[in-house]
Amino acid sequence: MSLQDNFRKAMRSYVYSVSILSNVSEDKEYHAITVSSVTSVSIDPPSILVCINKTSGIHDSIKLGSKYCINLLTKDHEELSNICSSYEEEKNRFASKLWDISNVPFIKDAQANIFCEVDQLVEYNTHTIVIGKVIEANNKDIINTLTYVDGSYE
Amino acid sequence: MSLQDNFRKAMRSYVYSVSILSNVSEDKEYHAITVSSVTSVSIDPPSILVCINKTSGIHDSIKLGSKYCINLLTKDHEELSNICSSYEEEKNRFASKLWDISNVPFIKDAQANIFCEVDQLVEYNTHTIVIGKVIEANNKDIINTLTYVDGSYE
Repeated sequence: MSLQDNFRKAMRSYVYSVSILSNVSEDKEYHAITVSSVTSVSIDPPSILVCINKTSGIHDSIKLGSKYCINLLTKDHEELSNICSSYEEEKNRFASKLWDISNVPFIKDAQANIFCEVDQLVEYNTHTIVIGKVIEANNKDIINTLTYVDGSYE
Repeated sequence: MSLQDNFRKAMRSYVYSVSILSNVSEDKEYHAITVSSVTSVSIDPPSILVCINKTSGIHDSIKLGSKYCINLLTKDHEELSNICSSYEEEKNRFASKLWDISNVPFIKDAQANIFCEVDQLVEYNTHTIVIGKVIEANNKDIINTLTYVDGSYE
């Protein structure tokens, strides 16, 4: 097996929480993408990072100072997670009534909503690492987080 | 509640996989630290990042080009995870027979071992984001990954 295959296989045993990153661009285009690579950086100041593929539709709308929401999903959001990770479904990403699109779009019944402002962008090969300053955060009390491991939801 | 408190609370609902980052410095000091902020960046080239607090003992030994291992833990490694996250236990981190310290130190029965070389260091406030080029990766077939959520192992 190649190094890529070995790495991919090793990463399949990571259990990760599933989030959707959502924003609205300057020209009022709404974007949402399912992401697994969310991790907090520092608590003070509150900051969080996510890795975004440069070929994804949302990539170019993520600019220094722009706002977005990281919506941590619950186990009820599998369908939304699939829609926001499928290229074919790109036009249907905001069809669900779960969205509030009055300002920075967010999922109303998410496990957590973490609103951020882009503070630093780090290019690394195929991806950009987006570091966000957290400006607001809320969560549900009962934990029912959607996770993914070895190619399946859990 | 303050923004910090809200953020901390929201992050408690993230389920994350527990890893130990291990290395040996130029002057033969062995280091290991429990980390939760591991995420893959790109598959081609295989790369992975982790956020390290600047005050941690391992921080200054992580230099451009230096090697380290990210050991994804199994549910049998709770004790080792506690030892490698406790300041008081710093001297006991390599006491376990689970370690192979013949070269870059690694945990022999880990869920996965991902050997890396530091490719880029990004400073961000209290932390450094360490981006590693993967040079070797292996994993166990049966998935029994140690996870942590809401302050407890799972």
